[in-house]
Amino acid sequence: MVIILKKNAPQKQISTLVRRLEGKNLTVHCSQGVNSTLLGLVGDTSSIDIDLLRADDAVEDVKRISEPYKLANRRFHPRDSIIPIGGHSVGEGFFHVFAGPCSVESAEQLSTIAESVKQSGATFLRGGAFKPRTSPYSFQGLEEDGIALLLEAKRRTGLPIVTEIMSDSQLGAFADVDILQVGARNMQNFRLLKALGQTDKPILLKRGLSNTIEEFLMSAEYIMAGGNEKVILCERGIRTFEPSIRNNLDISAIPLLKRLSHLPVIVDPSHAAGISWMVRPLSKAAIAAGADGLMVEVHNDPKHALCDGAQSLNPEEFDALMQDIRRRIAFEGKQVA
Amino acid sequence: MVIILKKNAPQKQISTLVRRLEGKNLTVHCSQGVNSTLLGLVGDTSSIDIDLLRADDAVEDVKRISEPYKLANRRFHPRDSIIPIGGHSVGEGFFHVFAGPCSVESAEQLSTIAESVKQSGATFLRGGAFKPRTSPYSFQGLEEDGIALLLEAKRRTGLPIVTEIMSDSQLGAFADVDILQVGARNMQNFRLLKALGQTDKPILLKRGLSNTIEEFLMSAEYIMAGGNEKVILCERGIRTFEPSIRNNLDISAIPLLKRLSHLPVIVDPSHAAGISWMVRPLSKAAIAAGADGLMVEVHNDPKHALCDGAQSLNPEEFDALMQDIRRRIAFEGKQVA
Amino acid sequence: MVIILKKNAPQKQISTLVRRLEGKNLTVHCSQGVNSTLLGLVGDTSSIDIDLLRADDAVEDVKRISEPYKLANRRFHPRDSIIPIGGHSVGEGFFHVFAGPCSVESAEQLSTIAESVKQSGATFLRGGAFKPRTSPYSFQGLEEDGIALLLEAKRRTGLPIVTEIMSDSQLGAFADVDILQVGARNMQNFRLLKALGQTDKPILLKRGLSNTIEEFLMSAEYIMAGGNEKVILCERGIRTFEPSIRNNLDISAIPLLKRLSHLPVIVDPSHAAGISWMVRPLSKAAIAAGADGLMVEVHNDPKHALCDGAQSLNPEEFDALMQDIRRRIAFEGKQVA
Amino acid sequence: MVIILKKNAPQKQISTLVRRLEGKNLTVHCSQGVNSTLLGLVGDTSSIDIDLLRADDAVEDVKRISEPYKLANRRFHPRDSIIPIGGHSVGEGFFHVFAGPCSVESAEQLSTIAESVKQSGATFLRGGAFKPRTSPYSFQGLEEDGIALLLEAKRRTGLPIVTEIMSDSQLGAFADVDILQVGARNMQNFRLLKALGQTDKPILLKRGLSNTIEEFLMSAEYIMAGGNEKVILCERGIRTFEPSIRNNLDISAIPLLKRLSHLPVIVDPSHAAGISWMVRPLSKAAIAAGADGLMVEVHNDPKHALCDGAQSLNPEEFDALMQDIRRRIAFEGKQVA
Repeated sequence: MVIILKKNAPQKQISTLVRRLEGKNLTVHCSQGVNSTLLGLVGDTSSIDIDLLRADDAVEDVKRISEPYKLANRRFHPRDSIIPIGGHSVGEGFFHVFAGPCSVESAEQLSTIAESVKQSGATFLRGGAFKPRTSPYSFQGLEEDGIALLLEAKRRTGLPIVTEIMSDSQLGAFADVDILQVGARNMQNFRLLKALGQTDKPILLKRGLSNTIEEFLMSAEYIMAGGNEKVILCERGIRTFEPSIRNNLDISAIPLLKRLSHLPVIVDPSHAAGISWMVRPLSKAAIAAGADGLMVEVHNDPKHALCDGAQSLNPEEFDALMQDIRRRIAFEGKQVA
Repeated sequence: MVIILKKNAPQKQISTLVRRLEGKNLTVHCSQGVNSTLLGLVGDTSSIDIDLLRADDAVEDVKRISEPYKLANRRFHPRDSIIPIGGHSVGEGFFHVFAGPCSVESAEQLSTIAESVKQSGATFLRGGAFKPRTSPYSFQGLEEDGIALLLEAKRRTGLPIVTEIMSDSQLGAFADVDILQVGARNMQNFRLLKALGQTDKPILLKRGLSNTIEEFLMSAEYIMAGGNEKVILCERGIRTFEPSIRNNLDISAIPLLKRLSHLPVIVDPSHAAGISWMVRPLSKAAIAAGADGLMVEVHNDPKHALCDGAQSLNPEEFDALMQDIRRRIAFEGKQVA
Repeated sequence: MVIILKKNAPQKQISTLVRRLEGKNLTVHCSQGVNSTLLGLVGDTSSIDIDLLRADDAVEDVKRISEPYKLANRRFHPRDSIIPIGGHSVGEGFFHVFAGPCSVESAEQLSTIAESVKQSGATFLRGGAFKPRTSPYSFQGLEEDGIALLLEAKRRTGLPIVTEIMSDSQLGAFADVDILQVGARNMQNFRLLKALGQTDKPILLKRGLSNTIEEFLMSAEYIMAGGNEKVILCERGIRTFEPSIRNNLDISAIPLLKRLSHLPVIVDPSHAAGISWMVRPLSKAAIAAGADGLMVEVHNDPKHALCDGAQSLNPEEFDALMQDIRRRIAFEGKQVA
Repeated sequence: MVIILKKNAPQKQISTLVRRLEGKNLTVHCSQGVNSTLLGLVGDTSSIDIDLLRADDAVEDVKRISEPYKLANRRFHPRDSIIPIGGHSVGEGFFHVFAGPCSVESAEQLSTIAESVKQSGATFLRGGAFKPRTSPYSFQGLEEDGIALLLEAKRRTGLPIVTEIMSDSQLGAFADVDILQVGARNMQNFRLLKALGQTDKPILLKRGLSNTIEEFLMSAEYIMAGGNEKVILCERGIRTFEPSIRNNLDISAIPLLKRLSHLPVIVDPSHAAGISWMVRPLSKAAIAAGADGLMVEVHNDPKHALCDGAQSLNPEEFDALMQDIRRRIAFEGKQVA
């Protein structure tokens, strides 16, 4: 951390500040210049509150040099994390497709889709039971019944399931779910993140629509700081100025996250664009950029889906996509397992 | 709502679609053109799912014409909502300043600040007990003890209190709080919004950092749809590309929200910039643009504040600001009460 | 400037880098820490290319501490610049309204509007002769004829004129124009900026739709570096995610620009929202935030305007706005002259 | 185009509006509803100014249905455009790498790099002679001398050259250049676009940092409307909130542009991130997403480059990248020619 002092800060103020910092077990290096004086802090600065420092009368600005996340940081954990789930390994070197409907709508719908995506090669079943919808008047999901249907589909197909949790008050209902998903709008729901840190469930954490990579990793850090290190990062599109698509896949997030963190990174091409014809080119790009998996929406009858039909593939389209994906995974030298 | 049909959509598909829409008590007007055919829907389209329509094989695109929110919509409630809280009226024609520390830190700190802001003319006391911090390693607030201290400060000063709730699982702890605040990062925490809709507490709803005006009003709608119409909207800065400030006050949000909705609109100039010297020019602009109040962070010792010190005013600065604010409120012909 | 070195950078590489920097008359202070080593550079770093430094094998990152602009920087020119134009003073302490049609359409249209805005209190006449339109099929302006009409209107009313120049190849046609405007889309048309730096005309420089404050001031610096210091900065709205308005007035830009630079700052509320009813609240906010003037579109018949009719006021609306503006200017203690 | 009328618009105003529209050879379909009345316009609406319509007293809003670009529109030109340049074919089915230094610095530098990139498989030589730099104090390029060096390198290697033009006043100096590049900051320099439309040179048009796909295609339309249809589109990264990279490759732009337009689409991974290690993953993603080529910065000595060294590859890194690219091009079934 580097502190830039104000040009005319009185020596007394500077001394007070330096003593305060040294009191936190930091070594302070001072570079006195013509236009500005710098203090370089050496030691563990993770507990230093930058805002507090900026409020000091002697301080012009503060620049952070090392990342504020530790457990999620590749610097301190150089090896890729591989998370074992339901007999599968999720992380670098492997590739998984999480497929299923946006919302669980009925036993029949779900079992049709589950069997179909399994046959096409998906290794996890996704499906929404509690749905975060922008409008209170839209379909909100089958809730607890939806989870029951997912568990039933899991029993039939053997596919481990992933479904979204929206509040720490819901944890009880998710006891048998394999992977708990945190949605983009809850990426900074810190009560939920803390509660998930107390569980031993794998967490699929989606990036918020306008959040930076650092904020995303800090949310992973929240979960990990509680003791649960099984976090899968999911890039699902950011908000940009382009009006013709709902969100915009941030392809750079994949290499950036892989470089800064050791956690698995998957991509949701269905939400990333919001249009079914774009799922394929975005899936191809995500694989080439190094993603460890894809989360794809599949619906047996997209035009009668109760939500997000426009971005869902039907089973035939998904099967064709999976054939292409398999060729590409082989090309990249990754393993499906 | 207008549906634009695909150029070569077969007549049979169109007929099926039209029958489906008429089955929802909508009247469908068709304009057949050279390049495209339009269906204009007349009736209550609030339950129509646009995504579902877009997935129809015959449909090229769908454009919404009326707003998807009803209870928050000025079109259906032309008169301004005035919310009575603790003997005060909040809404158009009145002006209130909500002041206090970012975080409640101690009994002494809070009572000093509370008495000071009251004397300067603030009508509500704000203070954080549960703090949503980006880092799990930052100070997270005094939690339940913080609420107890706020209630004590209220008893002493008579100022009604506003403090942030982060999850539906916390409602019990907020039973005696006057106004429950929903933070920017929780603007689309729909479980929380639904739970707040079941209470009869006034809710101060902060806009998310990258949310549109429509999404903001849809979140207000979530609370109102549950039966609680006492919602105060708070603009607190959006994310832009400017790196020299933390957020960026969206001044246009004030006239837009006032035109589209009947709800009170206040502004938080402290978070909107994140730097104390900008609180004053932003406060002046907010008053001139028509805000119904301001929420200002005040700390007795900003440089030792446990959070957000850089954006807090000290009591003397706040007092000077209040003198300027009073002149401006009088100039605008508004009332403090 | 602070250079953060890579953790394991070999001492030899570091020495080479330090010698290279010292060769540029910089003093280099080194802070060796546990996790990272910092080099603090003291001296004139304006000629240092940050990108070049970042490419050095030993360098992890580089942080700039002082602003890269000099002539536009208040640090080196603490007093406000007041620019004399046609008998008026533009800058801090004064307030001017630049009014007129988006496009010059005919002699009659322009003289009607010019006389009307003069009577209402505008001190400068604006009008587009060369129009930068997104579509090649839209009206592109009367070009040279438009300038002739502006000059005629100036002769009649005495109002100095401001009109937009789009390329360095057009300079000849603007010889008699009082203020040359650079449009938002040309803010980084560096050939144009350089050419304008060679003239002695006042330049009204509009901020680009997604440019930072630093980039904006660097474009002013381009003009000033050529010898022309008469630059008026104009905030005209930035691009945000809000779809209901065309652009979004960045109110924070006013206090930021006033603090960082000594140049006059005006606001264009007409383009900032793109809707006529928002011109008034945005004008009020801009005055309160400290703007030195406003640029307002006025058209005698907005619904038949050849461009931007939706954001133009008619003469009666403008007259009413001017009455309000005058009250507010007096309240702020500013002078119209 | 659909016009939504105001709820209580008087019938007389509506009739006047309808007559005005019919006077432009449009057929007007009216759907009268309970809450709103719609007018659907059938015919050629490209000359209709939406802003003008919005200013009409009877009009609430206007929604465009078809794209405002024609010559660049795939709807009217279903077959991919293949542009022949210097014996090569640029467009769908082919793949080209444009490589070379950010800036031309000397005869020796350029010839070294040119020969090296040719040997590695690049088919076009890029290099900046006139450089658009944010700071007036940064290196501005060798200007005319730079073009002379590029032409010399072309004679030696046979590689056709592409270099950036910054103003319509410079056209003379570019007479022998094979492809004229328009930089991101000049994407809406309409005088330049018009002038380029009068030439018969292939134009490489870079997308602006915050421009939409429609604005990008409208800029291509400007060139094409002048008679020059040889436009190559180049995605080079957009501005997002991520501070750790300079720009952010918009991967969705590739499938979107290919669907909406028939023009070739290439990607500049060097500028898209601004860091050399990201060139490779972004190149891989761009190929998988369907790009027709890449533009890559190569410098013999990146850390002494006069600009953008941080994002340049050295010749060995470029050679390794080209080997990977060739495998991928073959995998996608494309041809280098």
